[in-house]
Amino acid sequence: MSEAALAGVRIVLVEPAGALNVGAIARVMKNSGLKQLVLVDPQCDPLSPEAQQMAVHAVDILESAVQVATLPEALVDCTRAIATTARDRDIGITLEHPRDALPWLIEPQNTALIFGPEYRGLSNEELKYAQRFVRIPTSDRYPSLNLAAAVAICSYELFQCVVQPTLKETPDLDTASFDALEGYYQQLEQVLLEIGYLFPHTAASRMQKFRQIFNRAQLTTSEVGMLRGILSQIHWALQQKTEEER
Amino acid sequence: MSEAALAGVRIVLVEPAGALNVGAIARVMKNSGLKQLVLVDPQCDPLSPEAQQMAVHAVDILESAVQVATLPEALVDCTRAIATTARDRDIGITLEHPRDALPWLIEPQNTALIFGPEYRGLSNEELKYAQRFVRIPTSDRYPSLNLAAAVAICSYELFQCVVQPTLKETPDLDTASFDALEGYYQQLEQVLLEIGYLFPHTAASRMQKFRQIFNRAQLTTSEVGMLRGILSQIHWALQQKTEEER
Repeated sequence: MSEAALAGVRIVLVEPAGALNVGAIARVMKNSGLKQLVLVDPQCDPLSPEAQQMAVHAVDILESAVQVATLPEALVDCTRAIATTARDRDIGITLEHPRDALPWLIEPQNTALIFGPEYRGLSNEELKYAQRFVRIPTSDRYPSLNLAAAVAICSYELFQCVVQPTLKETPDLDTASFDALEGYYQQLEQVLLEIGYLFPHTAASRMQKFRQIFNRAQLTTSEVGMLRGILSQIHWALQQKTEEER
Repeated sequence: MSEAALAGVRIVLVEPAGALNVGAIARVMKNSGLKQLVLVDPQCDPLSPEAQQMAVHAVDILESAVQVATLPEALVDCTRAIATTARDRDIGITLEHPRDALPWLIEPQNTALIFGPEYRGLSNEELKYAQRFVRIPTSDRYPSLNLAAAVAICSYELFQCVVQPTLKETPDLDTASFDALEGYYQQLEQVLLEIGYLFPHTAASRMQKFRQIFNRAQLTTSEVGMLRGILSQIHWALQQKTEEER
């Protein structure tokens, strides 16, 4: 799946009061490949300097944001809607983890993710327009997320649905071959004997520990070269001293 | 696992410039059960009205935030550090998904998650203090996340590690502390200069490569002891030869 699968998802903010929040939300939406912002009866100016300052390079999202008077208008043409809430409600709804519910919005049709006002969240009346309900898990010591943080987390989760399986980027490492490593371990053992760090009868068990360290590091060919360079230099420095003695 | 498992994780902000961001970060940390905020040379007042306004009920996090002058000071006593970056770097590091790397910070010991300044992110020099590197996947159309949004997402992921016990993996290794590693790197540099492998003007860039190797290996305290033993022995062997000369 690609980012294009997110084109049909609208982020609906009900009565947002903070221009800084709305601007920050535009930015995080663009960071996550989301494009449609719908503001229900906004209590701030989404094109104010504060909003634009927070949006930075996502002012286009603010400019194309749609303003409507009521939540039902924001949901016109939507086939699926998820509402977010910070609280348990005694109204018989199931609260789901964002990771479980949000993939359901990735669809060719129009879908919506609804966030309530900063100071009260969504009312029970407003919740009833959604089919599913998400609560972002938070600490009991301070469960209430800032609106922009809540949108950031949900946008991030939505984006993960389309970029997975995870982008683990391994740089194209030229991992050292088995023989290159063995050559290094043999030279290491020789030098450690030469400087008197190892003794012949304890060398094997000690070398085992060094092997573990360097095997864990998954050395590249050029790193093995550097490490061997150190060993050659130690040997050379000791020889120099011996020569000087003569 | 419970929220208490997060007590050892410190959030380190390098030169944060925006008081609103720092306040928002305090709030989202408390939302996610995180307590320790460390500010490296902050460029704003973390107790300014703007910061407090955004922190709301997390002003205690701002009040107990520790201010230090340099990143190494922020990492004292840490056994593990992850740095965040928005960009690919041509310095041979592997960028991981937050979900893959962050569980590694959930430990009884002290660990750190490092974020760079708003306008430039972490420098290559600053990155070298971390053992692992995280990039939050974002859209190519606008990859740069707001600092507070990045912390919100990572804090959320950390909290999911403790509320969803499935995500954890950690062998109980006696991982070397930040200071133990730094002591080793300093001794290594000295010995490499002494044997003529390093020259003062190239030492820094070469040492960077050795740091990468040993950071990747995630050394234990006793391994650092063994490696330092080798260095002491090289120094001793060279001194012996010098003595013999006389």
